[in-house]
Amino acid sequence: MANQEQIETLRESLDVLIEDQDFARAAELLSGFHPADQADLIEEQEENDAHSLVQALTPDQLGEVLEFLNEELRAELIQDLSPEVLASALDELDEDVAADIVQDLPREQAEEVVPLLEYRDSIAELLIYPEESAGGRMSVDFVAVQRRWTVDEAIQFLRNEAPDDNHPFYLYVVDDEGRLTGTVSLRSLVTAAPETPIAAITSEDLITVQAAEDQEVVAERMRHYNLLALPVVDVAGKLRGVITADDILDVQVQEATEDFNRLVGLPEEERIFRPIREAVPPRLAWLMINLFTALMAAATVSIFEGTIERVAVLAVFMPVVAGMGGNAGIQTITLVVRSIALGEIQPRDAMDVLRHEAIIAVIKGVVIGVVVGMIALIWQGNALLGLIVAVAMLANIVNATLAGVMVPLVLKRLRLDPALASGVMVTTFSDVVGFFVFLGLGAIFVDQLT
Amino acid sequence: MANQEQIETLRESLDVLIEDQDFARAAELLSGFHPADQADLIEEQEENDAHSLVQALTPDQLGEVLEFLNEELRAELIQDLSPEVLASALDELDEDVAADIVQDLPREQAEEVVPLLEYRDSIAELLIYPEESAGGRMSVDFVAVQRRWTVDEAIQFLRNEAPDDNHPFYLYVVDDEGRLTGTVSLRSLVTAAPETPIAAITSEDLITVQAAEDQEVVAERMRHYNLLALPVVDVAGKLRGVITADDILDVQVQEATEDFNRLVGLPEEERIFRPIREAVPPRLAWLMINLFTALMAAATVSIFEGTIERVAVLAVFMPVVAGMGGNAGIQTITLVVRSIALGEIQPRDAMDVLRHEAIIAVIKGVVIGVVVGMIALIWQGNALLGLIVAVAMLANIVNATLAGVMVPLVLKRLRLDPALASGVMVTTFSDVVGFFVFLGLGAIFVDQLT
Repeated sequence: MANQEQIETLRESLDVLIEDQDFARAAELLSGFHPADQADLIEEQEENDAHSLVQALTPDQLGEVLEFLNEELRAELIQDLSPEVLASALDELDEDVAADIVQDLPREQAEEVVPLLEYRDSIAELLIYPEESAGGRMSVDFVAVQRRWTVDEAIQFLRNEAPDDNHPFYLYVVDDEGRLTGTVSLRSLVTAAPETPIAAITSEDLITVQAAEDQEVVAERMRHYNLLALPVVDVAGKLRGVITADDILDVQVQEATEDFNRLVGLPEEERIFRPIREAVPPRLAWLMINLFTALMAAATVSIFEGTIERVAVLAVFMPVVAGMGGNAGIQTITLVVRSIALGEIQPRDAMDVLRHEAIIAVIKGVVIGVVVGMIALIWQGNALLGLIVAVAMLANIVNATLAGVMVPLVLKRLRLDPALASGVMVTTFSDVVGFFVFLGLGAIFVDQLT
Repeated sequence: MANQEQIETLRESLDVLIEDQDFARAAELLSGFHPADQADLIEEQEENDAHSLVQALTPDQLGEVLEFLNEELRAELIQDLSPEVLASALDELDEDVAADIVQDLPREQAEEVVPLLEYRDSIAELLIYPEESAGGRMSVDFVAVQRRWTVDEAIQFLRNEAPDDNHPFYLYVVDDEGRLTGTVSLRSLVTAAPETPIAAITSEDLITVQAAEDQEVVAERMRHYNLLALPVVDVAGKLRGVITADDILDVQVQEATEDFNRLVGLPEEERIFRPIREAVPPRLAWLMINLFTALMAAATVSIFEGTIERVAVLAVFMPVVAGMGGNAGIQTITLVVRSIALGEIQPRDAMDVLRHEAIIAVIKGVVIGVVVGMIALIWQGNALLGLIVAVAMLANIVNATLAGVMVPLVLKRLRLDPALASGVMVTTFSDVVGFFVFLGLGAIFVDQLT
């Protein structure tokens, strides 16, 4: 296995070769390393160099590396390849990975490449399902034995069909129509008498997933039941493929990234080095939505412009009242969004969550309110100002916390993504309500404050 | 497999039995379902009922369910069990899960239980490693064949030792000292001549992990190399155990939750239904830190109290300048923290990221600045105010975005968690700098503004 130092050395040698534009030797140098590491190093190159480097890979090497390249760069790099080269590289890959790549090809290129593929039939089947569904993620490279066989027949079959790499495998049992009926363990196969019917040693307790279901359901089910592999069936119960936990590791990371991004209004798949012309429009769009909400806060303040003119110190505490409410709300919203994502709470739990968070909010609000009130009193030497700050603080922390519970749960109930823009809605609530309560109290007692 | 409706029906029947305090029948009813679902339903009960229900489970059932119960509830529930009952339940579990449970037991109970365990030796070995290390997560239930054996000897060994459940397995090859030297595929075993030496069909290209490494390293490595199983070796290269991808699904979810929580200042393992007396102190502590930063913003505003008294309309635009900066900064920080977590960027990439985000920030700042400036002009009929708002907006968006890049990268360079409190530092920057620039410009032009 390549350790960090070996990869560092490789990186340096590679830089020299690429500086010299010696891509043939660079490709050869790479070939000594794991394809995942090769892919990383190719991703680090300038666009032109990455193209030349990929052109210089042998077909075997290219196939292995394609699996690990990030999707965008991969889509770009393979546009230069001839259909023949691409097809022979794709034939090196697991069908599900090859299908993902074919799915992303421009239609014209796909039509040229698919007929050249060795496994075009299984790939065609995989292309039926959306990429992010169970069917799109499954591997069709599973081992199934017939229920009506004997143990001896099954062992003969395995001798010919056992996968030739170290992929661990489950032995699935199917009936004459290909419907999944259970699994047999390797141990029971090697210890049972040869004439024993497979049906007699089949274990029928099986967790499956429908091919059309979303990959998030697959991830949740595998995690919930601690599964290493999950068989995929179609509506008729026929075994179509198998999803293994290593494929789901990527799915989980992708789903978590989506949640992070949605909470702050970024596109789901946003990455740090997206080209600037693509990165700017969605971020600007989000700031425009934020601007609308910030203007609502400004409009609230403007109602009390006259009060602020008379008691300018109110402006000093505005950021405290609004900011603390916002922070309390953001904590709650993060907890709620994450709990929904992990299936720990449902909209029907809203009242329980609300009650729980309300108690916490009141305690937080009272403590912070008293502390901020005391600070205002000592700093500005004004007891009434302290009291107003304290009350506004309490009201706003409770308000923002409850908004933090309700916004994602309501979004979920409306079958929208709970993380979608939750953050900005809660900060808007906390700004508008916070300013209104605080400046409103200021306006009521304006004569006493001056 | 139990579908959602079956579980719903089960939940209702269970509620009735628990209302009647008929825990024996409740336990029996549960036993028809997957232990993961049994655990979920036990977690939903009131504390007293959960205790009685767990007491009523058969030892086999208890063992299976313990694996899936959440850690805190599990630790509580098993305190009531006698050492004998607990030991026989633990013997039903994989050693790594049993070791995790033993690790969480009060010392006295652990000392009573461990000597009663069937697999006490392997559990004792697992207890050497921290729970969240490779060694703590590994299973010791792997299949290793000796390098000096023949194929025939290996097959005889497998006949006796093949795992009896459907755990897929890799066949690891070890030398006389137990050092891992490679793997053999099942296919090569069944197709090679019986007298072939194992050494001749061993594949030696192997990715491993050290037992002492953190689970985050394990997750990253499995994901990077798309592995379903990762062998764990000690410093001498001896094979100690195997980690499978299903165990890492949980680790990934846990690590993502930690990142979410740290960004908003929650305890790493915070969950929505933490008891109130435990939930309040950390959240209050965080709000206190926030309070300190909010007061810095307030202090900045207070410098300009005199200006606000003369031009109260400045207070109206304060939340816009600060809030928009904060939102831009939070977007950047989320991207950067997530990219660091996924290993996509390192501190050495700081200049690249900074340049990239700076360009985006200037574009965002100019557009938003012009829009906000126009709104200020139209709304308040004051061109100078519009210009001041626009300039402050641009300055603050750039400021907050760059803080969003630098704060997590500096934390990472200091070997701290990049997500740690990043959010609050960036909002503080954006409040303080935003108010200072905006109100400072207001103060300079105060005579023209009135």
